[in-house]
Parts: sequence; structure tokens; C-alpha cells
Amino acid sequence: MVSLDLDIIAAHLEGLEETLIHRFLDRAQFRRNVVAYQPHRSGFCGAGSESLFQIRLRYQERMDAEFGRFLVPEERPYHRDLPDPRRAVSLPESPLRVNDCDAVNLTTEIAAAYLPWLDTLCVAGDDGQYGSSVEHDVYAIQALSRRVHYGALYVAESKYRLAPAEFQTLIRGDDRAALLRKLTRPEVERRVLSRVAEKAGYLQARINRTVRIAVDPQVIVGFFQSTVIPLTKEGEVRYLMNRRLDD
Amino acid sequence: MVSLDLDIIAAHLEGLEETLIHRFLDRAQFRRNVVAYQPHRSGFCGAGSESLFQIRLRYQERMDAEFGRFLVPEERPYHRDLPDPRRAVSLPESPLRVNDCDAVNLTTEIAAAYLPWLDTLCVAGDDGQYGSSVEHDVYAIQALSRRVHYGALYVAESKYRLAPAEFQTLIRGDDRAALLRKLTRPEVERRVLSRVAEKAGYLQARINRTVRIAVDPQVIVGFFQSTVIPLTKEGEVRYLMNRRLDD
Repeated sequence: MVSLDLDIIAAHLEGLEETLIHRFLDRAQFRRNVVAYQPHRSGFCGAGSESLFQIRLRYQERMDAEFGRFLVPEERPYHRDLPDPRRAVSLPESPLRVNDCDAVNLTTEIAAAYLPWLDTLCVAGDDGQYGSSVEHDVYAIQALSRRVHYGALYVAESKYRLAPAEFQTLIRGDDRAALLRKLTRPEVERRVLSRVAEKAGYLQARINRTVRIAVDPQVIVGFFQSTVIPLTKEGEVRYLMNRRLDD
Repeated sequence: MVSLDLDIIAAHLEGLEETLIHRFLDRAQFRRNVVAYQPHRSGFCGAGSESLFQIRLRYQERMDAEFGRFLVPEERPYHRDLPDPRRAVSLPESPLRVNDCDAVNLTTEIAAAYLPWLDTLCVAGDDGQYGSSVEHDVYAIQALSRRVHYGALYVAESKYRLAPAEFQTLIRGDDRAALLRKLTRPEVERRVLSRVAEKAGYLQARINRTVRIAVDPQVIVGFFQSTVIPLTKEGEVRYLMNRRLDD
């Protein structure tokens, strides 16, 4: 059974956040490379209007779908037309109470926030490294999906169980604004942001700047503040609005 | 042009080593999971005798081949029957002097050393997380291929240019043992190992042990000593034995 202990969830989220920081730092080693995101410019044989980024993401998700990745609740895909899994996956018993985890799929919002943010994360210009850039983008947005959805699903369920009657009233009343207020913990958000700043600094403290590009920790903090935290809370609301209320 | 300045190469190798340490630590979060490496037990629909690890590696390399990954000299693949690239890749001018980089392909040796080493890297047992285990294995052995071949190709060419006449004599005399001695720098190897120990410690100094499994830095040092360094030197010898001697 996946734990609903908030301390365990928080520790797990911390690990997912560290992975995210790594993925962002990896992507930042390459220039902005706008061409890799433009339609009709993939340079990929037989491709239509898709950008190289879109093609790479589609290939990756088709492969991952066949291996069963998206059977895991927090691994929400960016595509809907994916092949069926070709293997059975052993999953721990789930404490979640939604019939379809894609009711809480925020990947459209994640991609819409991540792609323009590359202007801030990356050094401007073009180094021709389109393949590596989009490979790292795909790892970054997969890590984002995992972080946002893990938080949304398990934090929401855990909080619900601490006060089911109160949550049921808000859910039945379709009161999203009150749900959002009830789910918001400013002191937890501040702690996440200061931990992200510290980790992004720590992980880069000893890099060799001859060959590695450093990223201002505040750039990463800014993305957590503008995107990761708000989308996680939006996901918590969606989870609760779709939660079965029979237990 | 890729630099042949030994300081730049060393700095780049340091970055590749750090990536390797990350990949090993990621893999170590899952149990040994022997089933994922056994033939006929992939659980993959329509698969023959291949293990889940082999299937995942094949899928990954087929995808990467279409994106042109293996056009890069240090990105040597584990398979030979891969599809042609579907895009042109812009490569910096190469200072290398071999006609075919696959003359220096040590992936068979890398896989033969990596897979049994999982007994040492991972906690024994089975957690059912076969998909995640082999996904991280594939990232780890791709990073290994990049580190070993980058070192082999560029360090060898750089050393050759410092003493071309001496190297030509050894190459024409087919004197592999003397080449190996000439390429060996014990003080550099000691520095690499102590840096790996320090980095593996530093990267784990603040992990939350509630949710993260720690790896003894000496386990990773041991793999660099037994495998990464010797295979890099073997690759340097192979590179020189296949080097064009006309310039």
C-alpha cells in the first residue's frame, strides 16, 4: 500500500523535487535552441508539422506506454492515443479513490508552463544540440508530471482522510475556491521553496565552470512558485472533485 | 572542433563521471530484481527469450538511433542492427583520426561488467519494480558508454599528438602492452577515484533516508577501478591501433 502518512509523502516529494532540479540543470547545459520547438522544422524524415520536441515526446511515451509506465497513478502521460501496455505491472495496493487517474491529468498545463520557461532557464542562442535538448526536456517534463501528480493525488487523499466530513461538504457544494483555501499551507510552500533554493545551490557548489553552465537557484525557485506548487494544488482540487464519496 | 586540451577533456570527464554516479544512485533505489535480467521472463507480450532489460535497451537504442544519437563518436550503441537516423545531426568538426568509431566499441565489455555488478550496487531481493529498474539500467549503461568512449577517443588522440613519433613506433610494432604502459598515469587514476569517492559522499550527504537508499561510495569507487578506468585504457589502445597514421 502506498503510504498516506504526510511525513512519508513529504519525504518522497522532496526526492522528486531533487530529481527535477537535476533535470533542469541538465537541460540548462544546452542553449535555448528555439528551432527544436518550432513546427515544420524538426528535420525529421517523414515528419509532418510536429516539432522535434513533440516527436521525441511522442516516441518516448509510446515506448513507455508499452512498458506499462502509465499504469502508475502519478505517471500521467502527455498524449492520450498511446499503445496498450505489453506487460503486466505489479502495483502496490492503491489508497486512492478515483476511478480514472486521468481525471487529474495536468500535463497540458505543465507543458504550457515549461516550454516558455526555457527562455529563463537556458542561455539564449543556438548550439545545434537539438537532439540532446529535447531528450533532456522529455526527462524534465516526465519528472514534472510525476512530481505534480504524486503531490496532487496522495496529498489530497491524505488531507481528505483527516477531515472527511468537512471535505465532503465542500465537494458536494462544488466549492472549488474553499477547497483551494483549505488545501493551502503557506508555511509548507515557503519551506519547499527554501529547500529548492538550497538544493539548487548545493548541487552546483562544486561544479567545474569550464565545462558546466551554472543556473541561478532563484530561476528554479521561480518555476516551483509559478507552476509546480499551483498546479499541484489545482490537481488536489481536481482529485477531490472526482473522488468517490462512498468511503 | 572538439577540444583536445587535456584540461578541458579532464573537466568534461569529471562531468560525465558525476552523471554516472547519479545514474548508479538512481538504480540503487530499486532491489536487485534478478527476474528482469532472466531470459524468457520478461512478461512482455510477444517477446521471445529476451529479458526485460534487453527489450528495454533495444527499444531505447532504436529510438535513439532514429534521432541520430550514434552519429556522435562517444555515443557507441549496444546493438549493431539499428535503424538509420531520420534526421541530420550537426556535429562539431572532429579531431579524431579513425574511419569508423565502432572500431572502438566496448559496449559488450561494459554490459558484461555492469550487469553482475548489480549484485553489489543493489539491495538483494525483489520489489517488483522491474520496469523502473531496467529503465535506470539503460540510462546508466548509456552514461557508461559515453564516459568510457569519450575518454578512450579524446584522451588517446590528445596523448598521441603530444608524441606522435613514439606512438607511431609502438602502433606499427603492434606493441599493445607498451602502448598501455605509455597511456597509464597512476596519479591521474588515483585522483579520479578519490574524486568519485568524494562526490558519491557529497551527493548523498543530505538525502532523506526514510525514502532514499544510500550507497557506500566505495561500491562506486570499486566499479570505476575494476571497469571504467581499465575499459577506458583498453579503448585508448584500440583507438590508437585503428588510428590513421597519415597525419
